[in-house]
Amino acid sequence: MTAPTLDEDLEDALAGPAAVGGSAAPALRRARAWLTRATEPGSVDLWRWIDDVGPVAAVRALRAGTAPEQARALVGARAGEDASLADLRRADRCGARLVVPEDDEWPALALHPLTVAAHTGDDPGQRDRTTALVPPVGLWVRGDPPLQATVDRSVAVVGARASTAYGEHVAADLGAQLGERGWTVVSGGAHGIDVAAHRGALAAGAPTVVVLACGVDRSYPAAHSAVFARIVDAGGLLVSEWPPGAAPHRHRFLVRNRIIAGLTRGTVVVEAAARSGAQATARRASGLGKQVLVVPGPVTSAMSVGCHELLREPEGGARLVGNAAQVIEAVGSLGDDLVAPAERPASPRDGLSDVARRVLDACPVRTGVSAERLAAVAGCDPLEAVRVLPALELADLVQWTGTGWRLAPPRERG
Amino acid sequence: MTAPTLDEDLEDALAGPAAVGGSAAPALRRARAWLTRATEPGSVDLWRWIDDVGPVAAVRALRAGTAPEQARALVGARAGEDASLADLRRADRCGARLVVPEDDEWPALALHPLTVAAHTGDDPGQRDRTTALVPPVGLWVRGDPPLQATVDRSVAVVGARASTAYGEHVAADLGAQLGERGWTVVSGGAHGIDVAAHRGALAAGAPTVVVLACGVDRSYPAAHSAVFARIVDAGGLLVSEWPPGAAPHRHRFLVRNRIIAGLTRGTVVVEAAARSGAQATARRASGLGKQVLVVPGPVTSAMSVGCHELLREPEGGARLVGNAAQVIEAVGSLGDDLVAPAERPASPRDGLSDVARRVLDACPVRTGVSAERLAAVAGCDPLEAVRVLPALELADLVQWTGTGWRLAPPRERG
Repeated sequence: MTAPTLDEDLEDALAGPAAVGGSAAPALRRARAWLTRATEPGSVDLWRWIDDVGPVAAVRALRAGTAPEQARALVGARAGEDASLADLRRADRCGARLVVPEDDEWPALALHPLTVAAHTGDDPGQRDRTTALVPPVGLWVRGDPPLQATVDRSVAVVGARASTAYGEHVAADLGAQLGERGWTVVSGGAHGIDVAAHRGALAAGAPTVVVLACGVDRSYPAAHSAVFARIVDAGGLLVSEWPPGAAPHRHRFLVRNRIIAGLTRGTVVVEAAARSGAQATARRASGLGKQVLVVPGPVTSAMSVGCHELLREPEGGARLVGNAAQVIEAVGSLGDDLVAPAERPASPRDGLSDVARRVLDACPVRTGVSAERLAAVAGCDPLEAVRVLPALELADLVQWTGTGWRLAPPRERG
Repeated sequence: MTAPTLDEDLEDALAGPAAVGGSAAPALRRARAWLTRATEPGSVDLWRWIDDVGPVAAVRALRAGTAPEQARALVGARAGEDASLADLRRADRCGARLVVPEDDEWPALALHPLTVAAHTGDDPGQRDRTTALVPPVGLWVRGDPPLQATVDRSVAVVGARASTAYGEHVAADLGAQLGERGWTVVSGGAHGIDVAAHRGALAAGAPTVVVLACGVDRSYPAAHSAVFARIVDAGGLLVSEWPPGAAPHRHRFLVRNRIIAGLTRGTVVVEAAARSGAQATARRASGLGKQVLVVPGPVTSAMSVGCHELLREPEGGARLVGNAAQVIEAVGSLGDDLVAPAERPASPRDGLSDVARRVLDACPVRTGVSAERLAAVAGCDPLEAVRVLPALELADLVQWTGTGWRLAPPRERG
């Protein structure tokens, strides 16, 4: 029996439900797999168009040459290629999968600020519309644990590659202390601060998440292949927007950084040179309403100048932290804003039924749509959608615009 | 010819002017000399009474046993002793003098927040009414340059005695850089950060000021006698509220710290342990409306924990600084609030005539008094006082309460 062609699959996808039993329909996953290879993340125009027409229709339009000119220009010759099935199989062979927004394990709440930013980042003078704050089309994930549960209580620990012994010591200590207290450390797997933080978490026997700028079957830097393998063995995850085999092109690191900020409750900068990438990551986290925490260092160290610059910005909102307890105090308070104090900060989604969660995920951010349309996207009976929407509205998760349903805007930042 | 007795001198003082040619009347200076030995600074009740009746009447009442009971209790047996002339002569022999509020070189503007605090600190629950924020009765000064001009552009650099090599390096560097840029470094002459800052200024050939908790003819710590001598030789000053020969009693250091904060535009804390004296000094500076600047350090260093605590206080107003340029940027802005940007920050007093300055210094903080009373205190003709008061009011330096003249309240903090 031969596998269905992409076009056959897409045909099926339009007819069937988007997800069954918490898992996206296979054809929908295949469409998103195709998009992760054909499109480069970070384009706000492309993301909005895909969000508007849906991934299946977007793939069909791109392959048929009927997509908007701008979208066709961005995809180029890749529109005629299809490695979607091969990519999914290649992922499977290395213990990876593609997680898509239609899956239960999609970290929808954490990524919500990226969705809002993609819809509201309307500044026509925006410098670079190809590194914009847009959500990923899907996330390739290597490792067993569900993505959402792993990053629910997570903190990014980032910093300079050319770190000092002091910075590496602090990063490893933070990684271990955060891990011991049940927090997941997310970082980029790079030399220096990143890998020190991952290693600290590993040493504490805690899961840690590496967000890569290349395929999850690759190791970049190559010297970290053993560390990455141990992370997967120890219940951690390797995560990437790019399909298996993708190369770590230079500009992808900048694009990747928004995922590190987006998946986590806060970003801790351990060492950063003046005007450095770590500072840029911190500013992105701040722009997404996430906590920016900064570890100071000797004023005589060039690797702390960027940290001190962040702390000196009068309106930057960066907070000085010296240990894991102070980090948890800062990111924990965000959780308190959302829910009553609990042993383990829960999300408002926790109590939702499977259907309610799917209807919630189907809600658009800006323009309200009918319950029928939501039911079609959520893959449920329209009557079921009508039944769960009032409860979602009471929980402040969705709102009625007068003409349709949409996601409720995020709460005021604390 | 024998010197006049204290009582003869005081008799004269009541008859003559308070100051002549910018210098306090000798008898007034003698009265204040007596007070610096008989009273321990830091008592808000005693200071208010002296301010109310004037130093000469205060000395007479204390010696005659007619002072209020509380004042008599605080002075005790010292009321019957008189070493005022001996103290003034002893000071003269070591190149020192007593600077009093009636002198032109009195740093009235810098100490103004202490005067305000002494008048307004009315909290009856105030923990310790003997370490209150009150101005000094007089300041014993060793070294040639006038006090006011030396501290006009000054910054306090304070920190731990048990400093690290890192902290001493930073303090010495700040001392040198501030000195090179025309700023006077004020500190307490202690081991560790204090003396490193003084030495940095010395190395830059810049004047530096040591505020001692003992007589200016003594060296505490003894190991710093050579440094203190070099400071005086290099155009710096040793300053103390206590008369020559006074011992550095433990509680005097706490009382002394308010003078370090009071004389300067801002306080830089270089290293401080958790819950340390340097933190207390910083909070006092903040309470006086002076800038609090903090140098961070490794989070692994116990000597930086206090610095980081200051920077983490949400409403503390402490600012992180990493070098002298950032210090000057912070304290310089205070000057900008007062005057138009200038090569050298000027004070509103700069353009005043000698008479106007004396009338201004004679103005009380709280209860307005008549121009006649001001003239008596200022040692000028009442008509002269009446002539200069409108100009002082236009310059926002004094105000008419409806029944008398008093100092205008300090401007809103920036």
